[in-house]
Amino acid sequence: MAERIVVIGGDAGGMAAISQIRKRKSDAEIVVFEKGHWTSYSACGIPYVVAGQVAGIERLVARTPEQFRELGVDVRMRHEVTAIDLAGGHVEVRDTEGNTTLEMGFDQLLVATGGRPMRPPIPGIELGFVHGVQTLDDAADLLAHAEAGRCRRVVVVGGGYIGLEMAEAFVERGVATTLVDSNEQPMKTLDTDMGALIADALRHHGVELRLCTKVRGFSDGAVVTDAERLEADLVVLGIGVGPNSQLAREAGLRLGARDAIAVDRRQHTSAAGVWSAGDCAETFHLVTRQPTYVALGTVANKGGRVAGINIGGGDAVFPGVVGTAISKICATEVARTGLTEAEAREAGLAHVARTIESTTNAGYMPNAKPMSVKMVAERGSGRLLGAQIVGGSGAAKRIDTVAVALHAGLDVQQVVDLDLAYAPPFSGVWDPVLIAARELVKLI
Amino acid sequence: MAERIVVIGGDAGGMAAISQIRKRKSDAEIVVFEKGHWTSYSACGIPYVVAGQVAGIERLVARTPEQFRELGVDVRMRHEVTAIDLAGGHVEVRDTEGNTTLEMGFDQLLVATGGRPMRPPIPGIELGFVHGVQTLDDAADLLAHAEAGRCRRVVVVGGGYIGLEMAEAFVERGVATTLVDSNEQPMKTLDTDMGALIADALRHHGVELRLCTKVRGFSDGAVVTDAERLEADLVVLGIGVGPNSQLAREAGLRLGARDAIAVDRRQHTSAAGVWSAGDCAETFHLVTRQPTYVALGTVANKGGRVAGINIGGGDAVFPGVVGTAISKICATEVARTGLTEAEAREAGLAHVARTIESTTNAGYMPNAKPMSVKMVAERGSGRLLGAQIVGGSGAAKRIDTVAVALHAGLDVQQVVDLDLAYAPPFSGVWDPVLIAARELVKLI
Repeated sequence: MAERIVVIGGDAGGMAAISQIRKRKSDAEIVVFEKGHWTSYSACGIPYVVAGQVAGIERLVARTPEQFRELGVDVRMRHEVTAIDLAGGHVEVRDTEGNTTLEMGFDQLLVATGGRPMRPPIPGIELGFVHGVQTLDDAADLLAHAEAGRCRRVVVVGGGYIGLEMAEAFVERGVATTLVDSNEQPMKTLDTDMGALIADALRHHGVELRLCTKVRGFSDGAVVTDAERLEADLVVLGIGVGPNSQLAREAGLRLGARDAIAVDRRQHTSAAGVWSAGDCAETFHLVTRQPTYVALGTVANKGGRVAGINIGGGDAVFPGVVGTAISKICATEVARTGLTEAEAREAGLAHVARTIESTTNAGYMPNAKPMSVKMVAERGSGRLLGAQIVGGSGAAKRIDTVAVALHAGLDVQQVVDLDLAYAPPFSGVWDPVLIAARELVKLI
Repeated sequence: MAERIVVIGGDAGGMAAISQIRKRKSDAEIVVFEKGHWTSYSACGIPYVVAGQVAGIERLVARTPEQFRELGVDVRMRHEVTAIDLAGGHVEVRDTEGNTTLEMGFDQLLVATGGRPMRPPIPGIELGFVHGVQTLDDAADLLAHAEAGRCRRVVVVGGGYIGLEMAEAFVERGVATTLVDSNEQPMKTLDTDMGALIADALRHHGVELRLCTKVRGFSDGAVVTDAERLEADLVVLGIGVGPNSQLAREAGLRLGARDAIAVDRRQHTSAAGVWSAGDCAETFHLVTRQPTYVALGTVANKGGRVAGINIGGGDAVFPGVVGTAISKICATEVARTGLTEAEAREAGLAHVARTIESTTNAGYMPNAKPMSVKMVAERGSGRLLGAQIVGGSGAAKRIDTVAVALHAGLDVQQVVDLDLAYAPPFSGVWDPVLIAARELVKLI
């Protein structure tokens, strides 16, 4: 009998694996259970559909169930796995459309159940006008709501990446948008001083800000904060994402960072023949050298690919991440990698930090825009720890330079010496990343 | 008596040094001899003045002679050093305005005589309508010519970085522009297949191309090639730049790569107390581990800074370059770093190469543009050797990722694993650089 591989979840982590499994085991039976209506899509693209830049959520689908079926994969949509029996080697599944249940045995299992948006127990959070944006199903609901009736006032709760992008989306739609955040500044994954630049950008682009503000409840037509009552036709929750690891926990799989499924560098869980990848699984932070939790499409794709190679009999490892992330709010770009100053402090690392102001291109070019770079290094050794960038067009993707330097364990002097590309339409003769390193090196 | 430091040349290499010397030796007498009319300027910006994007060549000056004089530096403009007497420890100088000569002793000397454009002995090359674009004085001449009379047809000779940028400049001015290149494709610092993409872009942006074409002579109003006679109101020479090392050679300083002044990692020449930096000096290639010659503002600035720190009594090294360069022709960006396939072959390295097609941003985003990445690695070891990128807005600066990886000596599998920034407006979930590495790794 052919080996049977069961995959729970048909998004990035699961589907990246399947392509690799199929390549290596052409005869294996591969069964995917996906509880939603979509496979293999870019949830990160949802804000751009809402903004009207991308014509419909279907555009976000990288591969349809049919395309996987053409690979001989048994894709079962609207099928929710309700239990994993590790000892028995089977899963219990509910067909949510047919309302039937079934049991299926597996030789190897990939748990790719993804993430789920945080939904704190705030009164009224279950109301229909409060929307998450984690899945394409969420997006379909939100879009239907935004387009159906009048949608003139939107409140976005949470000023992280999703919050920022959804605020931009509604500004682009011409909707009055208010962003509520419980912190002093939006983007708490940045240091407060860099977050302040994002606050300025949000205001500049017409977003009303309510900082240091807690949401106490939702009622139809309003968000009640600890300070006031904000009228809202639609609410977007951008409070963050956690691992959808309940099923794994109940099955007895070991959980790790932030209750994500613990995996080794081969994406193998604590149970033989059981793998995990994507937003439900932990990953490894190459700067702190600790397990961490990162819900990002890049990590899901890479982890899924590695899991797939290993399930397929190959041998691959996913070494981990350095904490890179990027976003934008209208014309203002933002990115980070490694550790912020606050994170370095938390990790107990003696550190120095420096922020410089420069321009995206040679200062005399008409398209030169302001750009701030904050760089953090270990005191004494000079080892690079991280950087944050806020600036105009072309600023944020430069974080990749720092990300590679972190992977390679460079010190700040080595960053000063990097042979980065220069021509006036692209950079000043000293790239802003190099300027930051050049100034930081003086403090070490 | 105070130490006297003489600097020959007032552009990037010399002037970057002076700031460092002054910081460390507040009492030293610093004398700069500059034969032209300008100090410390961005010659790379000349095409953008010609294009009308930058309002006047004065905008390209980073620091005027007056600003250096405020630092207590004795800047003598229109003074050409005609000889260096190493044994006697002095230079001979001609004041080209007063038409007098003088001799000046030095304790330490920095030779920063820069580069000079190639001017092959083609009949008519001395004619007034044939322009180089190496100095601001050249630019002033060219602009005066372009703006004075009718300038409806321009021929650019040489399809390297300068040629490309000058062709763009004249296209932007609405001038009929023809580019003549003796090679099969423009941009011979790229492999031929990538150069073909640049040829396509040039044609697409309205530049007439004459490839595999040699210039036989210039006569007023025309460029005579081996195939035809091209009418031209103005000719731009973009054949390349060589080191302006004649003075150093005559003084007996050792020359190195491409007859540039030989220096060690501290920018010290073969003579005690004599230093060199900028387009007249060689540098070190960190991939080939050989001395090389690179005429770029980045190298001049970094080398000058290191020379200055050392002249000032500090201890700094400039490790070298990995061969990064970037340019654009209208909407098409181009960049390279490390070794091309042709260069790897020349260096006798067993290698593999792969070219991938992707998009600058997530494929479903409205601003996604095609982007090609060619990556080269050592066969067997998988050591990354270089990459070339051609594509739309946002494509070329990604070369920095590869440049850092080259500095760090990463192999291609390590590139696949890099945690690069992803969000739909910036990249697909697999950055094109990672896709190239992922495909290349299969060949190793």
